[in-house]
Amino acid sequence: MAPPSEVDEAIEVLSRTPGLLERWLEGLSEPWLSAREGEGTYSPLDVVAHLTDNEDVDWMPRLLLVLEHGEARPFTPFDREGFRRRFGDWPLERLLLRFAAARRANLELLEKLELAPSDLDRTGMHPALGRVTVRQLLAGWVVHDLTHLAQIARVLAKRYRDDVGPWRAYLGVLGDREPGKP
Amino acid sequence: MAPPSEVDEAIEVLSRTPGLLERWLEGLSEPWLSAREGEGTYSPLDVVAHLTDNEDVDWMPRLLLVLEHGEARPFTPFDREGFRRRFGDWPLERLLLRFAAARRANLELLEKLELAPSDLDRTGMHPALGRVTVRQLLAGWVVHDLTHLAQIARVLAKRYRDDVGPWRAYLGVLGDREPGKP
Repeated sequence: MAPPSEVDEAIEVLSRTPGLLERWLEGLSEPWLSAREGEGTYSPLDVVAHLTDNEDVDWMPRLLLVLEHGEARPFTPFDREGFRRRFGDWPLERLLLRFAAARRANLELLEKLELAPSDLDRTGMHPALGRVTVRQLLAGWVVHDLTHLAQIARVLAKRYRDDVGPWRAYLGVLGDREPGKP
Repeated sequence: MAPPSEVDEAIEVLSRTPGLLERWLEGLSEPWLSAREGEGTYSPLDVVAHLTDNEDVDWMPRLLLVLEHGEARPFTPFDREGFRRRFGDWPLERLLLRFAAARRANLELLEKLELAPSDLDRTGMHPALGRVTVRQLLAGWVVHDLTHLAQIARVLAKRYRDDVGPWRAYLGVLGDREPGKP
């Protein structure tokens, strides 16, 4: 069997995120779902809303823009708080369904594009980061999912930061992204 | 409805880990499952084996030891590489089933114990950390799951560390636990 292509590899990870979020978060009690690391940071519920918003306006629309217009049309800047307007009052179950449907549609479209290796080298213009390739965009989409999955684990863990007592020394996640740490 | 007790809250998180690992990892291709941050670190597959090993010899056996013997019998030191001897050659699917069964049995036992608030204050002796309470042990068990879930997200993400190009600036997980960082 041939090794998976870069696109197939990305789809492997991207296709799993909705299902694993459902298994992880559905039915969790409110104190877990609304836990946060501090003012202006995302709770697990916020993360699902943010990922859903991204699915509608970020990765896939930008990919299509690159394929159609290259660097001629820079991406629309992404609003990291945009999900609060669009999905601020949505309960988790509705968000999970919405995210799963949007992700599925985007991945079906991605497969239909049948990107060739030369397509992965095509370039677009990010409003802040400058020139980016389709390859980088696909990798960024994957790592964006993973950075937010790591965030959920970290945010849930920090609810018990003090409760673990001396075990804190062994539980590295409690020291990640602490204020004052580079 | 009464808010969940500390034990119920812990069970909420602990009971979800096997299912979410299954959704996340089952069917992923080898390059993802065997990705590592460096020599002596865990791949996603290693994490599942380590969690399974823990389920057999760490959290629940120690909890029972505290309830029976208090501080009189210190915990057996835990071997972080013990999973390699026990499960080194197990494929992911077999590990996932084994982990799910062991976790389910442990949580059934935990519920049967019907721990009272006073039980949560009982103390045992950790061979390196000293005196610990049942409350800290339960919280440690939860955060241990979460630290390894964060690790899986981080390890998968770092496969694409270079591929994301300029997006790296926005993808915090790529900078977590980097060598030379405190």
